[in-house]
Amino acid sequence: MTEESEYDVVVLGAGPTGENVADRTRAAGLSTAVVESELVGGECSYWACMPSKALLRPVIARADARRLPGLGQAVDGPLDTQAVLARRDEKTAHWKDDGQAEWVDGIGARLYRGHGRLTGPRRVTVSGPEGDRHILTARHAVAVCTGSRAVLPPLPGLAYGHVWTSREATSAQQVPGRLAVVGGGVVGTEMATAWRALGAEVTLLVRGDRLLPRMEPFAGDLVAEALTEAGVTVRTGVSVAALVRDSGAGHPVSLVLDGGEHIEADEVLFATGRAPRTEDIGLETVGLEPGAWLEVDDTCRVVGSDWLYAVGDVNRRALLTHQGKYQARIAGPAIAARAAGRPLDTGRWGAHTATADHAAVPQVVFTDPEAASVGLTLEAAEAAGYRVRAVDHDLGAVAGAGLYAEGYRGHARMIVDLDREVLLGATFVGPGVGELLHSATVAVAGEVPIDRLWHAVPAYPTISEVWLRLLETYRK
Amino acid sequence: MTEESEYDVVVLGAGPTGENVADRTRAAGLSTAVVESELVGGECSYWACMPSKALLRPVIARADARRLPGLGQAVDGPLDTQAVLARRDEKTAHWKDDGQAEWVDGIGARLYRGHGRLTGPRRVTVSGPEGDRHILTARHAVAVCTGSRAVLPPLPGLAYGHVWTSREATSAQQVPGRLAVVGGGVVGTEMATAWRALGAEVTLLVRGDRLLPRMEPFAGDLVAEALTEAGVTVRTGVSVAALVRDSGAGHPVSLVLDGGEHIEADEVLFATGRAPRTEDIGLETVGLEPGAWLEVDDTCRVVGSDWLYAVGDVNRRALLTHQGKYQARIAGPAIAARAAGRPLDTGRWGAHTATADHAAVPQVVFTDPEAASVGLTLEAAEAAGYRVRAVDHDLGAVAGAGLYAEGYRGHARMIVDLDREVLLGATFVGPGVGELLHSATVAVAGEVPIDRLWHAVPAYPTISEVWLRLLETYRK
Repeated sequence: MTEESEYDVVVLGAGPTGENVADRTRAAGLSTAVVESELVGGECSYWACMPSKALLRPVIARADARRLPGLGQAVDGPLDTQAVLARRDEKTAHWKDDGQAEWVDGIGARLYRGHGRLTGPRRVTVSGPEGDRHILTARHAVAVCTGSRAVLPPLPGLAYGHVWTSREATSAQQVPGRLAVVGGGVVGTEMATAWRALGAEVTLLVRGDRLLPRMEPFAGDLVAEALTEAGVTVRTGVSVAALVRDSGAGHPVSLVLDGGEHIEADEVLFATGRAPRTEDIGLETVGLEPGAWLEVDDTCRVVGSDWLYAVGDVNRRALLTHQGKYQARIAGPAIAARAAGRPLDTGRWGAHTATADHAAVPQVVFTDPEAASVGLTLEAAEAAGYRVRAVDHDLGAVAGAGLYAEGYRGHARMIVDLDREVLLGATFVGPGVGELLHSATVAVAGEVPIDRLWHAVPAYPTISEVWLRLLETYRK
Repeated sequence: MTEESEYDVVVLGAGPTGENVADRTRAAGLSTAVVESELVGGECSYWACMPSKALLRPVIARADARRLPGLGQAVDGPLDTQAVLARRDEKTAHWKDDGQAEWVDGIGARLYRGHGRLTGPRRVTVSGPEGDRHILTARHAVAVCTGSRAVLPPLPGLAYGHVWTSREATSAQQVPGRLAVVGGGVVGTEMATAWRALGAEVTLLVRGDRLLPRMEPFAGDLVAEALTEAGVTVRTGVSVAALVRDSGAGHPVSLVLDGGEHIEADEVLFATGRAPRTEDIGLETVGLEPGAWLEVDDTCRVVGSDWLYAVGDVNRRALLTHQGKYQARIAGPAIAARAAGRPLDTGRWGAHTATADHAAVPQVVFTDPEAASVGLTLEAAEAAGYRVRAVDHDLGAVAGAGLYAEGYRGHARMIVDLDREVLLGATFVGPGVGELLHSATVAVAGEVPIDRLWHAVPAYPTISEVWLRLLETYRK
């Protein structure tokens, strides 16, 4: 049975990005269909942000408590693994999406379950789970919000290696005895932190010379130091050449490094990159390349098209849930304005321009210590041709940090645009800095001049007082 | 023996404010004398911020840990009181000021120990501890940074009641069995939190109808609810009429309430207000009233004088360490500019104008939950004649808050100036909001327009995402 329906907007993918596009187009009064082949709520809700942070939060809270005399002994014991995993299961709603499907219903969008494929301009065909087919026509726009998936390197033995990607690492129901983690980015460092704290022997294998390579160098250094102290074997400058798991899942796996060395583990997590989920969505029917990232302008409209949008991970601008949601808050109103024939506000920082994607992308890595950054690193700012100065300060020297934890170790850096005297970026690494980041995000996105930041007084004695130290250092 | 010396600047009081005035005038090349009758480092270092936060931090960390399954049982036991007190003692350097005196030395200021009194314009006489006298003449400015002290109400029996003020409450070496706290402001709520967690039976007696009366009403309500759950007896609308402690310190004290009811306690903390420490600094020799607050302009110069400054608590603009330090960063350069005959930058938010005192004073109350605010409350904004809208959001409904703690309870409010579409104030109450406040401080002091804040993306999943919810609510 095939049904045909017409909507103002068709959204492919009901992750946070797709949900937010639909929320905006619905708010503008546009009829909206949302197509989802897996769970409404997407990667973030079930196999990324939510479960990873649910695993990590008790680890961080315990670490914070351990750094305070008077609490130390009480929290020296192991984590209650079952309790932590049970809470993780709750935070993912046990991998059921009823609540989120209801939400879609509540905003007045129509949810189509099944695999959606473009079958020509403004047309999407949905193959439902029970053989049903729906042909959806979009009067104004189709928004591709299908996200990304973990990409595995083409290694011998990998196909039969039963390896973990971020999905298995965030949803595993048992603590592996020995876990090898390949990749030193956000997923690798966060999952090494979580599973180590839950009792696994963890080896972190990193090809480059440091962890968290997209952040300021001190971020990876401090996290590596802490992981090592937590008992993780951190090895940089190593590549995995092959994988051997003769007897199938449940049996040990052997990783063969480039030099020939073997490392045995019970599970192997590959956290080595992401690919767009665009292989099988009919891009070829509209003249685009299947499996490719979709290039968009600042309204998130695909370059060369007047009806196709790509929002979130698929456009490769910033592979982060919050940034996809931000793009949705830009693209949704842009779709609505164009549908109504209203002029767009596409100036820098305009209502229909995802300027923050270029200038103010924030990220918090929930390791212990946390690593938080926004905007450009020194290296990126210099590469972009800015005349800049990096201003550094030891976070541990701030009174609020010393109160927060004994032996507090951390570091802060801000990048000043010397021509305009505004911040281009900031990075904070240390316990308890996760919520501190947004102050820098407001300063960077707000382009608040240094002279004005001088009047933004940090409350004493918080860790935020590092702002004062950074500004004083800059002015010296 | 009397010595006479001349300096460019004489600073009365070596608390954080005086230290920062001296730091700035020294940085400008002005010779500077600092006079201190007690400990260099002041109230904040020994009897306020530092010891109170040292007592509170383990309490908050334990509360955070308790709200997470997997850690709960391990942290259900009592705090190790001796360890907590020992850490508090360390954070106050055991009430020794060698380190801070060295710091004064390091910036090239001259420290005079003793009681300093004005003895005419630009003249300060210091009576040293060993009968020595120093007459200091200030070529350019005298800065009064003597701070404030707890003020006790004129109650019958109080003089012999051996009551606690904030000094005793932050420096006590033993946990009282029963502690009565009079006053529901910052000191009262913080100390009730700390001593209750350390094992005291605490009764909090508040004259008004809610705690933290200077903050948005929900702050006091949430803190009162939490204190009650922690076992504190919170009583609002009650006044203490008299005090009876017949047998001296070490014996129970009886508080007589207005209605005649008696409350027995082992110690009583009066946290009922502050008075300027200006009674005995020779104000009468320069035509000012001893014991009065000193009225200043926005450069912190005393109204009617061309050489006398009052910085920090004594000017009553904002009785907070960080705000005193901020004023010092304004007044120091103002003194230096005037000394050099350079023009001052006294426009709104100018380099020599303490504009934040009026528009963007931040404060974090380190109770559990924390209460953090900056700028104007709804009531204050309306009283000031602004056309405003209060935008509210349940903090517990934010994903990052739910991850931070099970059963997270909290609330956020921002006050929008409808004419300029900027924030006039913000208040966050909930676990873990202390470092989140500075984002609002930057937004308020930076006068970042709502349209631009829309581009300041909060990292997912942090508690900071409440920003997005507040902005969405405002735009609905």
